[in-house]
Formats: sequence, C-alpha cells, structure tokens
Amino acid sequence: MKTMGFTRLILVQGPPLPDPQAEAMASNAGDILEAAVRVATLADALRGCYGALALTARSRELATPPLWAREAAAEMAQLCRHGDVALVFGNETTGLSNEELAICGRWAMIPANPAYSSLNLAAAVQVMCYEMRLALSELPAAPQSCAADIPARHDEIEGLLAEIESAAITCGFLDPQRPGRLMLRLRRLFARARLEKNEVNILRGLIATLARTSRGDFDHST
Amino acid sequence: MKTMGFTRLILVQGPPLPDPQAEAMASNAGDILEAAVRVATLADALRGCYGALALTARSRELATPPLWAREAAAEMAQLCRHGDVALVFGNETTGLSNEELAICGRWAMIPANPAYSSLNLAAAVQVMCYEMRLALSELPAAPQSCAADIPARHDEIEGLLAEIESAAITCGFLDPQRPGRLMLRLRRLFARARLEKNEVNILRGLIATLARTSRGDFDHST
Repeated sequence: MKTMGFTRLILVQGPPLPDPQAEAMASNAGDILEAAVRVATLADALRGCYGALALTARSRELATPPLWAREAAAEMAQLCRHGDVALVFGNETTGLSNEELAICGRWAMIPANPAYSSLNLAAAVQVMCYEMRLALSELPAAPQSCAADIPARHDEIEGLLAEIESAAITCGFLDPQRPGRLMLRLRRLFARARLEKNEVNILRGLIATLARTSRGDFDHST
Repeated sequence: MKTMGFTRLILVQGPPLPDPQAEAMASNAGDILEAAVRVATLADALRGCYGALALTARSRELATPPLWAREAAAEMAQLCRHGDVALVFGNETTGLSNEELAICGRWAMIPANPAYSSLNLAAAVQVMCYEMRLALSELPAAPQSCAADIPARHDEIEGLLAEIESAAITCGFLDPQRPGRLMLRLRRLFARARLEKNEVNILRGLIATLARTSRGDFDHST
C-alpha cells in the first residue's frame, strides 16, 4: 500500500501491535505499521468514511453485482472528493464474511483466471491499491451538477438503518425473533441507491415521526 | 501469474529445480513450477518471442523512455496477435542489468509513490500480469449476481410513493399545504435505486404497518 501512496492501515481484531514478524516483513514501510490502528469491529473502522469497497473473490448471494476492480476504483476515486473511503479486505484464510460484505456498500472483484482465481491477500491489496492510485491520478475535474449533493457517510446510512429497524420492530412489522432478510434487503437497496446526505435526513425524519406516533400492533415481549 | 492465466515461466540462471522452498510457496500453482524451464541467458529465454517488455523501477539511460504499465500491456497485447511475447523481471535484489534492459525492446514502469516506489518482485509480477490479462481481454461483462430480482414496474413504484405520501401526511411529517420537495426527492432516490419488485413490497408493507398504527401528531384539517 505504501508503494501506491496509501498510509492509513486499520486492522479489525488484528493481532496485537507491535508484531516482530510484521515489522520484519514490512521492509521500509515500518512507518505504516507503526501508525496502524486496531479496532474491534468493521463498523468502527468505517466510521466517517464516505464509502467502503469490499474485495471478494466470488460473487455471492444478496450482493448487488460486484464491479470489476478498475470500475470500482474509478467510483471510489469520485467519492474521495468528499472525504475518506475504505478498501476492505478479508484475512488470507477465510476472506470477508457475508455480514462484513453487507456492511460495505460496494463490492469489487479482480479479474482472474477462472481455473485459479484466488489471489493471495498481499497480491489483491497490491492490485487494488494500484488501481486506486491510477484512478485518483486520472480523476477529471468534477462536473458541476445543478443538483450537486453530498453523499451520505457510511455511519449516517447505518444510523438510518438502525432507526428503520427499531421502528419496524416497534410497530410490529418486524419480529426480532424472526428477522428474516428485511434489513439485509434494505441495506442492499440503500447501497445501490448511493444515498445522499439530504435523503438520509429526510428518511430519518419520516421514520422518526412515524415511529413516534406508532402504538404498535403486536407485542413481541409476550 | 497463474491467477492471471499465464503459465510459461522461464528462469535465466535461476536456482536448480525442483526447489523445495519454491514448491512450498507455490500453493496450488506447482504445475507452473514443474513446467518451468531454466536457460543460461536472457537471449535464450527470448528466442522466438515477438516482443519483450522489461520492468524497471526507475527510468534509466534507455534508447526510448519507458511506458507506464498499462500502455505497455496494451502494446504487448497487440503483439500477441503474432506470437509469443515475454514479460521480463529482474531478481528481487538487483533488478535487471543495463545489458538485460537493452536486450528487451520495450520498457515499462509501474506507477508508484515517488517516496517509496520499489514494489517487490512478486507484487510487480502480479500487477503486470493483471494488466496483461485485462489488455488481452476486452473488459469482461459484469459478473452475474446470484440474487437477480425482477425490477419493479413503474406503477408499483408510483403506488409505493403514494402510500409514503399518505402516511407522511397522516403522521404529520408532511404538510399538504406546504409539501416542499419531499416527494420529488423520494422519486429521484427511487429512480436512481432501480427498485426491485420485492423491495417495493417490503417498503409498502413497512409503511402500511407504520401508518395503520400511527395516531398523527398534527391535524392539518383544522
């Protein structure tokens, strides 16, 4: 990542730092390791980001179709105009869980040999950082739109989802004992919609007002 | 290289094969190692090739300036119409000598952070093979999602919008006398989202349940 000019490394439940083996392998990129941050959850890592791109080796259920790495990098580069974005990689062995993929709003695959498609983690990071470097260097000046709105931050969308879930439970639409796929579907819809800040505010206002005035049809506590 | 679909590895004065350490690190690409060929000189390795692209970490006193990796891959892909081409990498420590560079007719550099520009050998091979794979294939069609759903019909989305509007008025969030741009914004959002039939049904169910249980904070009729 340092060869491509990126410096902020966040480890979700990674091993304790400093780690002698990691330091030995970091060559002259020890400064990145020293500044690395460990956090407990992926949500913690993504707080404040305007977008999160998860790398996956295969297309999975309940994702919108992933983009190829190059297109995804171009889209993330656009989002960089507004603030931080994150590239999200799973560990070497198991990759990202479906839950972690769902939390990220965007998914990318690296084109590969179908007969041997799984790049190791370091290789995937190198290719994706390379594409990001090129996408950022090729970024044309922002076109002026009459409706130029600020995209919602990742945690703002998470806040909206939490409020919808809470309202849906309160009013009896969602049974927390049998949640089904409601929230996953909404997450998918919002990811595809590329929600803007104003839209999140509108939806939160609507849901909050509906929830405040709701008495609930069902009582799941009994 | 196997992840990108390339199979022919030629080692110039490399270590004797088989090499236990190399086999251990090859993971499931042992077939490439088994088929690898050792030769005495770079000229031997390039015999029969229609072009040879040398990767270099820095611009040197070359006959022509190096190309960036992406342009170079495009040029090599064109040459592949005629026959074999070679990507030529130096060893991890010293790279390619000036003599070796001179033997190759073309030179490429991988764009990198000027403050830390030297990719390790494996990383450079991965990036260059990735660029060659993309250059050789037109950008492939988007990967298929496992969860391809039926798009919502226009009138189904209109029905959803009408229900949201009605619920928003009933609960007091929307003043019909001063509607503002709420519905316009939601319409815009749903258009961008390319709503699916299932999603419309879920949202209609949620809104209907919230609305049925809402008592309303305001009474616009008085």
